[in-house]
Amino acid sequence: MNFASDNTAGIAPEILQALVSGNDGFALGYGNDDVTREVERRIGEIFEHDVAIFLVPTGTAANALALAHVSPPWGAVFAHSEAHILTDECGAPEFFGGGLKLVGMPGVGCKIAPETLASTISHYLGHTPHQVVPAAFSCAQASEAGTIYRPGEIVALTKIAHAHGMKVHMDGARFTNALVRMNASPADVTWKAGVDVLSFGATKGGALAAEAVVFFDRAEARNMAERRKRAGHLLSKHRFLSLQFKSFLADDCWLRLARHANAMADRLASGLAAAGRPPVWPVEANLVFIVLPRAVETHLKTAGARYYVRNSESLPDQSVLGPDQCLIRLVASFATREEEVDHFVRLVAKT
Amino acid sequence: MNFASDNTAGIAPEILQALVSGNDGFALGYGNDDVTREVERRIGEIFEHDVAIFLVPTGTAANALALAHVSPPWGAVFAHSEAHILTDECGAPEFFGGGLKLVGMPGVGCKIAPETLASTISHYLGHTPHQVVPAAFSCAQASEAGTIYRPGEIVALTKIAHAHGMKVHMDGARFTNALVRMNASPADVTWKAGVDVLSFGATKGGALAAEAVVFFDRAEARNMAERRKRAGHLLSKHRFLSLQFKSFLADDCWLRLARHANAMADRLASGLAAAGRPPVWPVEANLVFIVLPRAVETHLKTAGARYYVRNSESLPDQSVLGPDQCLIRLVASFATREEEVDHFVRLVAKT
Amino acid sequence: MNFASDNTAGIAPEILQALVSGNDGFALGYGNDDVTREVERRIGEIFEHDVAIFLVPTGTAANALALAHVSPPWGAVFAHSEAHILTDECGAPEFFGGGLKLVGMPGVGCKIAPETLASTISHYLGHTPHQVVPAAFSCAQASEAGTIYRPGEIVALTKIAHAHGMKVHMDGARFTNALVRMNASPADVTWKAGVDVLSFGATKGGALAAEAVVFFDRAEARNMAERRKRAGHLLSKHRFLSLQFKSFLADDCWLRLARHANAMADRLASGLAAAGRPPVWPVEANLVFIVLPRAVETHLKTAGARYYVRNSESLPDQSVLGPDQCLIRLVASFATREEEVDHFVRLVAKT
Amino acid sequence: MNFASDNTAGIAPEILQALVSGNDGFALGYGNDDVTREVERRIGEIFEHDVAIFLVPTGTAANALALAHVSPPWGAVFAHSEAHILTDECGAPEFFGGGLKLVGMPGVGCKIAPETLASTISHYLGHTPHQVVPAAFSCAQASEAGTIYRPGEIVALTKIAHAHGMKVHMDGARFTNALVRMNASPADVTWKAGVDVLSFGATKGGALAAEAVVFFDRAEARNMAERRKRAGHLLSKHRFLSLQFKSFLADDCWLRLARHANAMADRLASGLAAAGRPPVWPVEANLVFIVLPRAVETHLKTAGARYYVRNSESLPDQSVLGPDQCLIRLVASFATREEEVDHFVRLVAKT
Repeated sequence: MNFASDNTAGIAPEILQALVSGNDGFALGYGNDDVTREVERRIGEIFEHDVAIFLVPTGTAANALALAHVSPPWGAVFAHSEAHILTDECGAPEFFGGGLKLVGMPGVGCKIAPETLASTISHYLGHTPHQVVPAAFSCAQASEAGTIYRPGEIVALTKIAHAHGMKVHMDGARFTNALVRMNASPADVTWKAGVDVLSFGATKGGALAAEAVVFFDRAEARNMAERRKRAGHLLSKHRFLSLQFKSFLADDCWLRLARHANAMADRLASGLAAAGRPPVWPVEANLVFIVLPRAVETHLKTAGARYYVRNSESLPDQSVLGPDQCLIRLVASFATREEEVDHFVRLVAKT
Repeated sequence: MNFASDNTAGIAPEILQALVSGNDGFALGYGNDDVTREVERRIGEIFEHDVAIFLVPTGTAANALALAHVSPPWGAVFAHSEAHILTDECGAPEFFGGGLKLVGMPGVGCKIAPETLASTISHYLGHTPHQVVPAAFSCAQASEAGTIYRPGEIVALTKIAHAHGMKVHMDGARFTNALVRMNASPADVTWKAGVDVLSFGATKGGALAAEAVVFFDRAEARNMAERRKRAGHLLSKHRFLSLQFKSFLADDCWLRLARHANAMADRLASGLAAAGRPPVWPVEANLVFIVLPRAVETHLKTAGARYYVRNSESLPDQSVLGPDQCLIRLVASFATREEEVDHFVRLVAKT
Repeated sequence: MNFASDNTAGIAPEILQALVSGNDGFALGYGNDDVTREVERRIGEIFEHDVAIFLVPTGTAANALALAHVSPPWGAVFAHSEAHILTDECGAPEFFGGGLKLVGMPGVGCKIAPETLASTISHYLGHTPHQVVPAAFSCAQASEAGTIYRPGEIVALTKIAHAHGMKVHMDGARFTNALVRMNASPADVTWKAGVDVLSFGATKGGALAAEAVVFFDRAEARNMAERRKRAGHLLSKHRFLSLQFKSFLADDCWLRLARHANAMADRLASGLAAAGRPPVWPVEANLVFIVLPRAVETHLKTAGARYYVRNSESLPDQSVLGPDQCLIRLVASFATREEEVDHFVRLVAKT
Repeated sequence: MNFASDNTAGIAPEILQALVSGNDGFALGYGNDDVTREVERRIGEIFEHDVAIFLVPTGTAANALALAHVSPPWGAVFAHSEAHILTDECGAPEFFGGGLKLVGMPGVGCKIAPETLASTISHYLGHTPHQVVPAAFSCAQASEAGTIYRPGEIVALTKIAHAHGMKVHMDGARFTNALVRMNASPADVTWKAGVDVLSFGATKGGALAAEAVVFFDRAEARNMAERRKRAGHLLSKHRFLSLQFKSFLADDCWLRLARHANAMADRLASGLAAAGRPPVWPVEANLVFIVLPRAVETHLKTAGARYYVRNSESLPDQSVLGPDQCLIRLVASFATREEEVDHFVRLVAKT
């Protein structure tokens, strides 16, 4: 019953197999190999657009490199107050970005409403040069609450950002989980909707450690190779990063793995709802959040369930936590099995 | 005949197997797993000292994180002019170190003589606060020329550094190659000789991507966890970094792999010497440098040999390159086979 | 009727005279002169404590240098959301601090309540190493709203900060204005109350451009000389910085100038209150904020009054701005004359 | 007999008078005043070109802000090994530039020969992305040795730099001293010769603390206002910076002061040459370097002469220092008097 995170799982079999099969022989290091070129082509194909990609081993690196590349040191990057880049990266965007400023915004379910973005930006206009300059908007797809932005919602946000000359970054650590939930193509929810640069995650989806920074305008990627290198994120045996992506993206593997994770989240959600513990936010990706009495929570932990207790100021209005309650986050992954889900649901139901 | 680099090889079978075997089940991310703790213990055992370790995926990250941790932004880090940190990391130490300054020093065979270190440091004293402050000395073991520092040589250098309140960093991307050549223990060539922090490399030795920053004084590692995290170098599925190190260090695997690489370098060196192309520097690790007429070099490339042509200002006095000559670097790895070596030597001999 | 800022005034006569008188002859540059040493002694005397001081030309420099010195790059610095360091320094603390994070907190009248500080810090504990680390608390004395912290209030805050191993910085751009309002000594409101480092401003008080970073523990100032130098803030003709401070601090000049500024603010406040426009916050330093109908505001501008319209989320609960209202800030300085004040009050009264 | 530096002098009377006269009344802060606009126009007039200017209080700030603006963090900035930016700014360019790399080059008399620049740049090509990228060339005019670049020499260097897409910065802390020595206009030795950005110094020339970063292409100055602000270098009472420049540039004051300083250097040089101590480099600005026996040097110090003993590796071949010799630097300023010069020359002659 391990629902702690999608990164507590191991490597998906298809990807592990690719590492094994691709291990023979010699290959030039630092991305000068055929597999890397193939992955770039493949990602371009998937997004139906010419792209420049930069593979790195962590999501924090992908996010921080991307943000530093689209914001000057005196830039403001607007994102949800509970976004991973604000709360879980120990200041990586500020470090990579030479001291840029992250500006947190509120929003139910960790999603930003267009009017919130517009009004927050407005506080950063007209006080030149005393204030940082609006440079980028970053949204997480799926969000940290497991909610997703539909194409129209993304368009509404990116239009505001672009109107102020800002760039748009999408933190897609769980991009595939969001994608497979929608009747939309990868292109529809990224560049066609105004996204300039995407952190396209494979790690949580089943890879060992592989994320791609995807630029939809090759010109904007200029010197990103140097930026990645000086951050220590250019792997010497780079082919193994590429092999992970190649196998992840082959034969719909990425979509299949994400659909499974989402299905397990759905199963959790419906089971828990039936047990009187409905999710606090719509379950749109592979995350389920429920409110529990603390006593129940203790009982679950004791029974061997693994998950994190979280704080959030993004709860819907009707879901304020009582003093004896807590919010728990349950994450399903490609490796989550139905039995675990059912076992957990039964445990909760019995309390 | 691939002698381009030790990172053109794949993953050593023992290490790949460990990734496969260790893939089952769930494990907490970010290093909060049992294998990681085991690796820390094991590295302490090998070095006969309490250590704090930080695993990262690249050597550039290991070096830059280590240097930033022992030098303030206004610090000077002294190293050989042709050290990897100066020439091949695109300014990573300067970036991680908030703008610290690398000071290059000359030295035959990419080794620093004690008197060179002492006199260079002396130029950075007495002009406070207009000049950067001597903060660290960094030496590569083995060096970029494939030479090694004997314990006594290290002691002579670290004494000078410590006398000025400086810390000593060792870039051990090829630490094991140096170690197995000497009649000395890991402790003898590190902390017992005055080394404060070591970049202990496994990647070139046979791992996928795994390096350890090893602090011999746990107190000096304070907040290194935050530094690594905000650099994007804390892997979420961290156990796979640890599994690489665990298997690398099990059953003398690391020593065996390095001995093989060194033996192949020796075989190259003696064959080439017999063919009238002796190495320009003593072959003490897994690197062989020879001088060739450009025409010969072209011929070898055409015949399928892979290696890099290099420049160096660290040649012995008698080895000045003529206008029609070039210096080539041949690197042996755990994966280099005798047949390749012999084939290459025959090719050279025939020219 | 210039109430735009205390920096729209020129140089106080006493200070200008000191520049003229001190101009003769030669003096070693970079602070190696007698006047500089004298100023350090004098500041120590005023604060009844051994101090290390660093003179710089701007308040932004003083604040950013001080904060960077007490916080590591992965540190969180807690301050009021409308503090100058968050809103008016274009990211200087983040730049100087290698990407440190400023955490804004709410508080009526731009003051932080102890419970707000405690609860905000608590959100930055226990999630190591994913989150930045509580490093410093910064309070402005007087605050941006013109309110002041009494000694007991400072103690309550600094105790919380110190209990978490944090340092305390005081932004004293208007330190003297706060000081003269209280029945307390400079020591009482700084180190005796737990302040570790003070930005002690003279510019707004009447100098040309002179601020002092004052460390109350000399050991904590280690290498601040290098930090200031590499920030370009070590003036070569440093004696002219020192002459400003020397004359500012001689013969109670600083106190007299601040008392005048405060008295003019009081006169404004009482006049405006009598005219039905009472200050929104207690007038404790040299700033007066009132709410005006927009039409009135336009009229005042036309009549030649100079001031800034501000936004604030720190208004007392009863003072919410209506859609046709605005908040204006009036700043008095050593150069403000009674006639101007009275003229302005009459203008307002007539509307 | 103070020849320690041109910054040991005070403020030139014309400039001090301007501070006094300009002190009346109120003026908007931060450069939004009339004098500042006037100075920008005046500098444009002097250089016969549209310019964007940024006034700051120190030369280190001017240099570091300029270099950071024309080089990315992964850029290499090429300059003479003994340039002020390499040896006397405690890493300011690296700090402001996010860890950019300064590459030192040799050259007699602290001047760079075109072939040296070309060959040094060539070592930074073709090793992407492992190496920093050639971004800028910086030359000092006058140089740290007191030598100057003639227009043709500047053209030869800037052509090489521009051919590699690099920008050219000129450190003009002693720009006027160089200018008045040549039969050339300010335009001839800057933008017409290929200089992109100039640190135009007034401090050493007679100001209190005033330097201008001058961009000859306004587009390249974009966001420099934010960069200056976040470095703490935007003075609030900015008019006093502008008043210094206004008076410095009025009525040929700047040229007159520099001509005097140069004349005093010439007088020193000819007197010392007559006394058997000829300058080691041509005296082209206001600096004179001579070689003295250490015993003589001690005698001069004792007799009250003030100057610095320097090291240099830029001596002409015939001028190697013997073990009992030292190199001393004598700096003349607007405040140097003939009597002092003659007194010093007599002292030397007598030894």
